[in-house]
Amino acid sequence: MGSLKTRRRVEFRDTDAAGIVHFSAFFFWMESAEHELMRSAGLHVFERHPDGSEYSWPRVSVSCDYRSTARFGDELDIIIGVAAIGRTSVTYQCVFEHDGRIVAEGRVVAVRCLMRPGSKLEPVAIPAEIVARLTASDAEREKHRPEASS
Amino acid sequence: MGSLKTRRRVEFRDTDAAGIVHFSAFFFWMESAEHELMRSAGLHVFERHPDGSEYSWPRVSVSCDYRSTARFGDELDIIIGVAAIGRTSVTYQCVFEHDGRIVAEGRVVAVRCLMRPGSKLEPVAIPAEIVARLTASDAEREKHRPEASS
Amino acid sequence: MGSLKTRRRVEFRDTDAAGIVHFSAFFFWMESAEHELMRSAGLHVFERHPDGSEYSWPRVSVSCDYRSTARFGDELDIIIGVAAIGRTSVTYQCVFEHDGRIVAEGRVVAVRCLMRPGSKLEPVAIPAEIVARLTASDAEREKHRPEASS
Amino acid sequence: MGSLKTRRRVEFRDTDAAGIVHFSAFFFWMESAEHELMRSAGLHVFERHPDGSEYSWPRVSVSCDYRSTARFGDELDIIIGVAAIGRTSVTYQCVFEHDGRIVAEGRVVAVRCLMRPGSKLEPVAIPAEIVARLTASDAEREKHRPEASS
Repeated sequence: MGSLKTRRRVEFRDTDAAGIVHFSAFFFWMESAEHELMRSAGLHVFERHPDGSEYSWPRVSVSCDYRSTARFGDELDIIIGVAAIGRTSVTYQCVFEHDGRIVAEGRVVAVRCLMRPGSKLEPVAIPAEIVARLTASDAEREKHRPEASS
Repeated sequence: MGSLKTRRRVEFRDTDAAGIVHFSAFFFWMESAEHELMRSAGLHVFERHPDGSEYSWPRVSVSCDYRSTARFGDELDIIIGVAAIGRTSVTYQCVFEHDGRIVAEGRVVAVRCLMRPGSKLEPVAIPAEIVARLTASDAEREKHRPEASS
Repeated sequence: MGSLKTRRRVEFRDTDAAGIVHFSAFFFWMESAEHELMRSAGLHVFERHPDGSEYSWPRVSVSCDYRSTARFGDELDIIIGVAAIGRTSVTYQCVFEHDGRIVAEGRVVAVRCLMRPGSKLEPVAIPAEIVARLTASDAEREKHRPEASS
Repeated sequence: MGSLKTRRRVEFRDTDAAGIVHFSAFFFWMESAEHELMRSAGLHVFERHPDGSEYSWPRVSVSCDYRSTARFGDELDIIIGVAAIGRTSVTYQCVFEHDGRIVAEGRVVAVRCLMRPGSKLEPVAIPAEIVARLTASDAEREKHRPEASS
């Protein structure tokens, strides 16, 4: 299964009046880590097909458990990995660490959907090619790493 | 157990490039609903005691399940209630609806903590008076409703 | 010229680790006040025309001056008004007060644009009907107030 | 005068339902660029002195002009520089570019303040050592670059 480790510094926008990182920030960081993992696997977060249809990955369920606090300026290690893949969904697991101490652990279930402006999102089966890319070991993924954007 | 129903309109800041409400917005709304419920029970989100100590309610666990989408300008009904109270924690449950359709369901576990600048948060037992206020029926709460701020 | 006074409470999401409202929050509040002013004048923030074209009001210039601080839980009075209207642009001015004390003053220049997915925004002349609604005195606006949404 | 060039990718949190970067995002990016410039000059965004007093740099005025749009996934070049230094204030200017095209130009005036919990912020003169670090040419700054954190 694919995984990715990134690092980011806590920005001031992510803090609150209790002097610590606001709990919401971890969800933004998880989303960005998920997108980086997709890019590293040569996948697009939004896919526009020649027939004009568009596919993306809205989330149907997210959660986060907070183990300790992080503060402005801290550099966090973020490790995200694919935990499971179903017919239409991908489950990601994510750990946030600061100097080896666990700060938070999160989980996201994203569903592949046909996106139509103004209509309900329609879940669709994940193509085999995408499953292969998401489940490739990190070594395999590195081997095939394409130039990807957005 | 206490509960509260509020209504708020989806603001532009809460949308994303998929044209719908960003999944993070529900966490902000849950937090604000929790704070309104506390205010309606005559409780302060931050309590500064005469000895200089300060208490608040950081969250240790949150989750949200997304049932349907909401869009810019929609007016959402938000129903939050106390689902359980432990020695140091309160569990809130929250439902978001638009025109009677469920949009999302969330859950928050907040822990009463002694907040010390630069130190670890220290969980403390919830005083009986606060338990009583949080578990009062809505009718009882209305009867005793004090003038509360912040 | 139209103007509108609203009130909103500072939410926790709008604070930062300095213990005060983050400077960015005033821009979100200005945007929402602008949208409320438009709704009160019977205007839509996004207009979809029968031919499929869509119009909205992206901003080309914004600024804010900070006079004093606001904190979590404060209730702010927000007064927004149309300061000037050009061929394609509307300039709004906005004052934020807490208990009669000025907290911040902001200014927004929004331009009416034809929005095309993936293309450059194209400024277009503001129709006379919209100019009339935006420049109507508050009393006139109240008289004609339609049922508007989003 | 000091300046710094950084690069960051537009994250999904920074977009809105018009499909482009929300205008507020540039203010967050400017703030983070300002903080990176300070760190690169060996300065702390928050200074805690041995006597318990704390100093930081709240902003008194900010503005941004938008020249073109940016979208999810775009990599932006951010160039920030010190434009002027007064007795208590620093003015930063910031340009955002995408592939050589100007996206936005911003300006921030930050004031050195003594921060006291619950009190008014008190502007104070900027120490000569800090003026020297902020006005050092980039080459000089590189030479003295200390290990800085938060």
